[in-house]
Amino acid sequence: MPRERTLLPSALQDAYTLGGLDPEGLFPCILGHEAAGIVESVGEGVTSVAPGLFPCILGHEAAGIVESVGEGVTSVAPGDHVIPCYQAYCGECKFCKHPESNLCVSVRAFTGKGVMKSDGKPRFSVDGKPLFHFMGTSTFSEYTVVHEQSVAKVDPAAPLEKVCLLGCGVSTGWGAVFNTAKVKPGTSVAVFGLGAVGLAVIEAAKRAGASRIIGVDINPTKFAAAKEFGATECVNPKDHDKPIQQVIVEMTEWGCDYTFECIGNTSVMRAALECAHRGWGTSVVIGVAAAGQEISTRPFQLVTGRRWMGTAFGGYKSRVQVPDLVSEYMAGGTLLDKYITHTMKFDDINTAFELLHAGECLRCVLTF
Amino acid sequence: MPRERTLLPSALQDAYTLGGLDPEGLFPCILGHEAAGIVESVGEGVTSVAPGLFPCILGHEAAGIVESVGEGVTSVAPGDHVIPCYQAYCGECKFCKHPESNLCVSVRAFTGKGVMKSDGKPRFSVDGKPLFHFMGTSTFSEYTVVHEQSVAKVDPAAPLEKVCLLGCGVSTGWGAVFNTAKVKPGTSVAVFGLGAVGLAVIEAAKRAGASRIIGVDINPTKFAAAKEFGATECVNPKDHDKPIQQVIVEMTEWGCDYTFECIGNTSVMRAALECAHRGWGTSVVIGVAAAGQEISTRPFQLVTGRRWMGTAFGGYKSRVQVPDLVSEYMAGGTLLDKYITHTMKFDDINTAFELLHAGECLRCVLTF
Ligand SMILES: NC(=O)c1ccc[n+]([C@@H]2O[C@H](COP(=O)([O-])OP(=O)(O)OC[C@H]3O[C@@H](n4cnc5c(N)ncnc54)[C@H](O)[C@@H]3O)[C@@H](O)[C@H]2O)c1
Ligand SMILES: NC(=O)c1ccc[n+]([C@@H]2O[C@H](COP(=O)([O-])OP(=O)(O)OC[C@H]3O[C@@H](n4cnc5c(N)ncnc54)[C@H](O)[C@@H]3O)[C@@H](O)[C@H]2O)c1
Ligand SMILES: [Zn+2]
Ligand SMILES: [Zn+2]
Ligand SMILES: [Zn+2]
Ligand SMILES: [Zn+2]
Repeated sequence: MPRERTLLPSALQDAYTLGGLDPEGLFPCILGHEAAGIVESVGEGVTSVAPGLFPCILGHEAAGIVESVGEGVTSVAPGDHVIPCYQAYCGECKFCKHPESNLCVSVRAFTGKGVMKSDGKPRFSVDGKPLFHFMGTSTFSEYTVVHEQSVAKVDPAAPLEKVCLLGCGVSTGWGAVFNTAKVKPGTSVAVFGLGAVGLAVIEAAKRAGASRIIGVDINPTKFAAAKEFGATECVNPKDHDKPIQQVIVEMTEWGCDYTFECIGNTSVMRAALECAHRGWGTSVVIGVAAAGQEISTRPFQLVTGRRWMGTAFGGYKSRVQVPDLVSEYMAGGTLLDKYITHTMKFDDINTAFELLHAGECLRCVLTF
Repeated sequence: MPRERTLLPSALQDAYTLGGLDPEGLFPCILGHEAAGIVESVGEGVTSVAPGLFPCILGHEAAGIVESVGEGVTSVAPGDHVIPCYQAYCGECKFCKHPESNLCVSVRAFTGKGVMKSDGKPRFSVDGKPLFHFMGTSTFSEYTVVHEQSVAKVDPAAPLEKVCLLGCGVSTGWGAVFNTAKVKPGTSVAVFGLGAVGLAVIEAAKRAGASRIIGVDINPTKFAAAKEFGATECVNPKDHDKPIQQVIVEMTEWGCDYTFECIGNTSVMRAALECAHRGWGTSVVIGVAAAGQEISTRPFQLVTGRRWMGTAFGGYKSRVQVPDLVSEYMAGGTLLDKYITHTMKFDDINTAFELLHAGECLRCVLTF
């Protein structure tokens, strides 16, 4: 059976401990507990998760070390330190070649179905039954198998238990600012949702020179971190009788130059658009909404100059740019460490989910 | 009573015939026939036309000659040839100063209410009762009164009965391509609705170097003109069982680089977004939907890289750029004459509306 790539997952403390894939006792538990919460994105046209995708090994924000490579793999070798990338990069397809897109399609049809491209089958099994891959990464395991296109080789000096965060949320927030919205100095920004993604937007907006950054969350315990990251003020929609878009428009006279939705709530996506500045305001959808939900607004919002956009992985071309993000971290220019509010052993993964759900955690790094 | 500006309206054959405003017999007829069809845009937050706006003098796409100016008006003088601009330009407000917006607010609060800024009253009356202004222009009359901010001085050699078209639809289509979408050479474009606005988009897209231009209309008699203007192919949604967005995505593999809605139909606005190219496609809403209607889509359409925008008057800063558009016409670089399919006397205005409604007319220029 060809093995496209095998690597050790996120932030291994015992990165050199080898061992076969032994899902028993772990995976039924993860699936049962988080199946609905974790399926963060699905292929185009999919409105409910394909039942065929279960059972699967979840997880997509990780870092590890290459254990072995499959036939024909030349860009990484055993021992390389890598970050698995749910958004692949092949360098050859129409999307990789386009300067404005990172939505590589080289392995998309297969990762969307939870299998590998070479033979259309998964590489995991339990009791002889196949276990599907998830987002082309499946990092909630000691070993995983990913396509060559789905792994970015990074500086081996970088601490895996930190840079694993660059596999999704933090990179997405940064890229939404630098690549998608292209925030200019001296502008105003509103950020809806102050989890790791929203904070990454705030961090990047500050670096981009935004002069006013308004953080918005219904959980006011998020405000201290938001201000530490760069928010100039914070607003709790629950403190106001008016719709939040109206509150922001009144605070700013005409709205903010840029607004970002970092929650996954379609009503907030509308609010974020509607408090983008009349005439030129850009609103970026980052949050992933529940299956089947739709966004809506009056078209007049667009006719009067607002722009509605979205981002996947912040527009970064994964294999090419994730190594640069790691270098930026190593150079000391980022707040990456601050997103890690908790660390625990992988066996405590359900505790980690509870903390996340309770809003008490930004990112919890699990190690084996 | 201060008169901000008095000018003779659209395409006068007898431009020098003077006469007082005599609405009787004309305006009840226009209002009764076209009241719903003509209220093309309303102020922000208005979801039904304010009843206080009636009775009014309609009309907003015109050209004329300044007859007299009010106190303090310095930028135009009697005898100047001008195009009234429903989108004003003052040069002083936040929107005029912003490089990316033409949505001047200097007189907006007053034109939205059908009155003049200086005293909050209209300048028209019939039988002693006030008649409101419409879109700050009210050009279905021999004389009208507009704000200084709402009139662009143009080359006096330009034929008024042609350049009157630059007061709205044609400029909007051109600007949507050059200013809003910023269409690049070698790209693909889909244009929904092949009236004057859609044809202007096609004309401009061709000038911008688009290599594939797909015209879409449910009235196939529009296709000949679309091809003459630059469409490389035309599609009638009625010829297909599938949704039109799916037809276009299949024709183009991933959608068009740019799509434009030039109808005012919210379902088509959605279709236009959904057949913009995955990864970077931009969709521009130009059509003005009926009051209260909303656009919607799955947020995934934006997360996977599509951008939803809109345009008002094609983004042109009216007083500054309309004179340039007139110069472009005079230099022979445009197809402006071709949009005029009919000309008639003002008294036949209802016939003109019937032709427009029947889809047999692009633009009908009325003269007195
Ligand atoms: N587009 C992409 O490529 C991409 C990448 C990573 C994450 N995401 C998505 O980004 C979103 C945020 O991720 P995260 O890890 O920061 O999540 P998180 O759950 O840590 O943060 C969400 C925050 O939103 C707040 N919130 C909830 N409802 C709110 C409301 N109505 N108004 C204001 N605030 C509200 C919560 O209190 C919380 O602080 C998720 O939907 C995730 O799936 C998208
Ligand atoms: N945003 C702005 O600044 C601005 C400026 C001018 C005009 N407009 C708007 O632009 C729109 C077009 O103006 P116009 O003068 O070209 O109008 P028009 O009526 O001449 O053209 C509309 C075309 O759309 C076609 N059509 C109708 N329903 C359709 C459907 N479901 N699918 C495909 N085609 C369909 C019609 O057959 C017609 O050819 C109007 O809504 C107008 O109010 C907006
Ligand atoms: Zn690719
Ligand atoms: Zn993620
Ligand atoms: Zn202005
Ligand atoms: Zn118009």
